[in-house]
Amino acid sequence: MDIQITKTAAPKVMPPENELGFGKYFTDHMFVMDYEEGKGWYDARIIPFGNISLHPASTVLHYGAEIFEGLKAYRRIDGGVQLFRPMENIRRMNNSAERMSLPAIDEQDMLDILTTFVKLEERFVPKSFGTSLYLRPFTFGNDETLGVHAVKRATFMLIASPSGSYYKEGINPVGIMIESEDVRTVRGGTGYAKCGGNYAASTRAGERAAKKGYSQVLWLDGVERKYIEEVGAMNVMFKIDGVVVTPMLTGSILPGITRKSCIEMLKKLGYEVQERLFSMEELLESLEKGSLEEAWGCGTAAVVSPIGKLAYGDKEYVIGGGKIGEVTQRLYDELTAIQWGKAEDPFGWTYKI
Amino acid sequence: MDIQITKTAAPKVMPPENELGFGKYFTDHMFVMDYEEGKGWYDARIIPFGNISLHPASTVLHYGAEIFEGLKAYRRIDGGVQLFRPMENIRRMNNSAERMSLPAIDEQDMLDILTTFVKLEERFVPKSFGTSLYLRPFTFGNDETLGVHAVKRATFMLIASPSGSYYKEGINPVGIMIESEDVRTVRGGTGYAKCGGNYAASTRAGERAAKKGYSQVLWLDGVERKYIEEVGAMNVMFKIDGVVVTPMLTGSILPGITRKSCIEMLKKLGYEVQERLFSMEELLESLEKGSLEEAWGCGTAAVVSPIGKLAYGDKEYVIGGGKIGEVTQRLYDELTAIQWGKAEDPFGWTYKI
Repeated sequence: MDIQITKTAAPKVMPPENELGFGKYFTDHMFVMDYEEGKGWYDARIIPFGNISLHPASTVLHYGAEIFEGLKAYRRIDGGVQLFRPMENIRRMNNSAERMSLPAIDEQDMLDILTTFVKLEERFVPKSFGTSLYLRPFTFGNDETLGVHAVKRATFMLIASPSGSYYKEGINPVGIMIESEDVRTVRGGTGYAKCGGNYAASTRAGERAAKKGYSQVLWLDGVERKYIEEVGAMNVMFKIDGVVVTPMLTGSILPGITRKSCIEMLKKLGYEVQERLFSMEELLESLEKGSLEEAWGCGTAAVVSPIGKLAYGDKEYVIGGGKIGEVTQRLYDELTAIQWGKAEDPFGWTYKI
Repeated sequence: MDIQITKTAAPKVMPPENELGFGKYFTDHMFVMDYEEGKGWYDARIIPFGNISLHPASTVLHYGAEIFEGLKAYRRIDGGVQLFRPMENIRRMNNSAERMSLPAIDEQDMLDILTTFVKLEERFVPKSFGTSLYLRPFTFGNDETLGVHAVKRATFMLIASPSGSYYKEGINPVGIMIESEDVRTVRGGTGYAKCGGNYAASTRAGERAAKKGYSQVLWLDGVERKYIEEVGAMNVMFKIDGVVVTPMLTGSILPGITRKSCIEMLKKLGYEVQERLFSMEELLESLEKGSLEEAWGCGTAAVVSPIGKLAYGDKEYVIGGGKIGEVTQRLYDELTAIQWGKAEDPFGWTYKI
């Protein structure tokens, strides 16, 4: 793929690694390319990072025509840089595009864009374990009229943010509130796509949970309001009587890449994993009986996030004594060892830059 | 409200009224104001219409933090200019803001903004019956970080587009396809809010319908997939055995201002109107029995849009001989007479500028 590169005249200073946080700092450059119906993608370019200019009627500002991905470039212990299952992100982004009537991008082109960009920005991949260069590819519709229809013009961008460790102060289990009012999405809707609307629909519930002292909400399905779907913006897993249960992909759940990797890793470690409908009643019953041994969210940002408390209405349940469980810890250790190149990768998940 | 006005140095030429179309041309200026948590709305200004500058991590580009409204400034037959029920739009926008965790705007301030802006752009309100100056207020989240949470910064804008008559070539009934795969939204979701995500979720089905020769889809509810909700981006009404039936506002349906006005007008004209759950089975039964006399969509853009054909799977039904029905025509005539100032407004719906 032919990418025009215009380098910045004012290189930034990389912030101290312990002050990075998430998604606050950006690298020197950004990748941009444009799309027009009939012409396809064109003008692939890397330019200095900076504001973009949008027509006030641009589709993305009114009709939510936007999809994105999130993946990380990891600093290996040997000093190299690698991605983790990038083709999974690339394929999911194209699935999101199909659902949202936005243009897809050739898989090999997208991989070229990611690798060219990460090579150029390599000095922004931080070195401490747990830190990474967060990569955010996104496509948005960019027609300059107010008519409601599939867009004829779009823009694809890739920006990158050097980000700190999610667990700067150690892995602390979080408190989660079962959400019984708002619904994130529904089968037939856009739940399996990584699109703006899913996140916008989730914000209010997240804020309400935060006000009550919980980190996230546990989402129930929009049809029967009884099956567990996700936790905050992560997939969720439960260990009950030694078996790991995770909601099956019904269409309203994001097909998480960390979710998929956890399942494959757990099977390799000898655990039974059930992908199936899992109801709130079954969850509450397992809490009452004491058979719920562990619960955790999983996603790119946190890898795994142990759940120590679960609130439902006025009742609060403690899981695993409020401490991280054995399987949760094991998953974290095994996955991060592969991601940061501390261990062999028997799965072929890593992609060296 | 204190609004700083910077007038354009390059006034545009108003395009010919029969070439306007919808949402393609914009007036000389735009209204902009900014919001910051703790500070509130500030820097209310009218400036020359032009592109805006956005940080590539701006929330609106990734997490769909966006709400909007649509209303029209009408040229009265006496030469004056008026709005139609603007407080309804203003209140709905604030309801949308609440659902989407975006900042609300003081109702009186919003009315001031609308009137000040329309006065300034008065020459862009076209003169022919059926044409109007379409007003598009919108708010979007504008944090410059990738974290997922309620925004701390937002921007409100008002842009305006002189638009042609929806029925340039007369009112032709449209063909509609019942959508059985995609779902627009669900109770507990964002259906009652005018937010980007609802439109993004609808695009694919609309495109598929267009490919099959239909104008729009008829949306079914996301829970039981049997109750009729909306048609395209409009509310929908049916006349069966002399009674008008329209889906009740369950939370997944937009509380349309034209919908509300149709109901009030119909009642005044002596029709019985039922706001209730209305199933696809009941619709198909009324089609088979021949008791479905009329069907129409209603919304700001079209006022009313008669439905002449309805497709379900392989079957196609013709409604009212494919012609506009008596009640549909009457609603169009009565509402447009008030909107364009051709008749008295016994409801107090109009707001003169």
